[in-house]
Amino acid sequence: MAYDGVETPHGRVDRMLGGAATYISLAASYFTRTRIVAVVGDDFAKEDTDLLEEHGVDLEGLERVAGKTFFWAGKYTPDMNDRETLTTELNVFADFNPKLPHSYRDDSYLLLGNIQPRLQRHVRSQMSKLRLAGGDTMNFWIKDFREELLATIREWDFLLINDAEARMLSGQDNLKKAARAILDMGPHTLVIKRGEFGAMLFRRDSYFIVPGYLLETVFDPTGAGDCFAGGFIGYLAQQGFDLEADHISRGELSRAVIYGSVMGSFCCERFGVERFRTLERAEIDARFEEFRRFTSF
Amino acid sequence: MAYDGVETPHGRVDRMLGGAATYISLAASYFTRTRIVAVVGDDFAKEDTDLLEEHGVDLEGLERVAGKTFFWAGKYTPDMNDRETLTTELNVFADFNPKLPHSYRDDSYLLLGNIQPRLQRHVRSQMSKLRLAGGDTMNFWIKDFREELLATIREWDFLLINDAEARMLSGQDNLKKAARAILDMGPHTLVIKRGEFGAMLFRRDSYFIVPGYLLETVFDPTGAGDCFAGGFIGYLAQQGFDLEADHISRGELSRAVIYGSVMGSFCCERFGVERFRTLERAEIDARFEEFRRFTSF
Repeated sequence: MAYDGVETPHGRVDRMLGGAATYISLAASYFTRTRIVAVVGDDFAKEDTDLLEEHGVDLEGLERVAGKTFFWAGKYTPDMNDRETLTTELNVFADFNPKLPHSYRDDSYLLLGNIQPRLQRHVRSQMSKLRLAGGDTMNFWIKDFREELLATIREWDFLLINDAEARMLSGQDNLKKAARAILDMGPHTLVIKRGEFGAMLFRRDSYFIVPGYLLETVFDPTGAGDCFAGGFIGYLAQQGFDLEADHISRGELSRAVIYGSVMGSFCCERFGVERFRTLERAEIDARFEEFRRFTSF
Repeated sequence: MAYDGVETPHGRVDRMLGGAATYISLAASYFTRTRIVAVVGDDFAKEDTDLLEEHGVDLEGLERVAGKTFFWAGKYTPDMNDRETLTTELNVFADFNPKLPHSYRDDSYLLLGNIQPRLQRHVRSQMSKLRLAGGDTMNFWIKDFREELLATIREWDFLLINDAEARMLSGQDNLKKAARAILDMGPHTLVIKRGEFGAMLFRRDSYFIVPGYLLETVFDPTGAGDCFAGGFIGYLAQQGFDLEADHISRGELSRAVIYGSVMGSFCCERFGVERFRTLERAEIDARFEEFRRFTSF
């Protein structure tokens, strides 16, 4: 969990609620009961925990320590497809060692946000009744912590990364070849996010591609990938999905990708988490149907 | 019609059959009887007209004049999403003034390749029984021949351009806003090609988006956009589609976009027109069904 400073062609916010755990849990909260494990400093505002609680997010795993909350600031390019990091202050996140509350350990679904792979692995190892576990990573871990990362994702059911990360992890420029190489690393399922161009889901015997939702105004793409992840796992948890069971269905996974895309698209409509202050489940289902309309032939 | 020299990460060909009319007519020939209007020089090889004739392309409108055929050479970037033009020799194309044979004038479907807008307009004006007419253009005409281009596309049913051209023509970065602005310029239907990211179709009351086909190896993207155009209009002509009639169907237009995407994807599998030497209609329909599988949810 973090505070972010963001500048886009539509405006600038110096400090607002952010962080992968925030976006993931808010997005997932529309589908299922969500519990987070994260760390914040003593500067973390009550109104920000209030927002999460209003969405039914269990904060027992939210650790508060002396110091300042992680802070990131960035500026987007005019076409919003790239961003420049202006500031990264790790603050209390530098010594983060995720502690899983006992009440979380029997949960069935786990989404590991982008942190040090060893820490992700440690969290995973404390959960014994998982039906579906996976997560995100980034270029830094792929490049400089490759062995730890490989040992970590070997135990995951799904990996959810963007196209540049998929290319870097696999050493393949072509995404079909990249996907095959990554599925050989352990996960049964790979989701590749392509920003405004949509998302792809790969399994060994099939794949699914969806274009991005066409927004008229992208206010702020910050958190869209995390909201995708939240929608994806949230929907699967709501369905009681079990990747290892007989009823593995490419159809369910595809619908999870659509719900992920829906949540990512809503995220971009306002700065930061603003859209989630008003978003209702009915709007989510309406946009899911809109995806059906503009992609079916 | 042209000769092209192309270099991609997969190899290099110094001189091969190319040109928009070639790719469009070859792609369309799998769906309907195709007739071309184009100019070549006296260096144009018999084996190249043979290939077109084998595909049933009517060459009555192919003018041969003294001099050399248009020549273009270019080199693709490693990710194949961009290319650098190395040589453009207009040759006999410099004085091209398309002459429509009398036998073509009652045809129902017209696709105008990317040439001077005034010439496109002149061709269009000679056809009196059109059920569907449209075409392509490029940055050069959008920038330096804007008024002529606007007068030309005002009479078209559809415009088929890429995303950068749509942004330039409309002055809008956002493609949804760009599409609305372009539909105000005359065409009822706008198709935006996005290369590897697929294509979009816009009408005033609906839109359709399809992701690109995921090839394992893109040998040479040259002509893919023109093959898209050929598949698009070829399918509509085969269906006897009439945009002005009561049975205007977004579904038919969407399927035309899929057939366009299918033809564009086959084009990339070999250098130049090579893939069309062996391609069979059954492969086209099989790939159409593959599009259904990887996009439905």
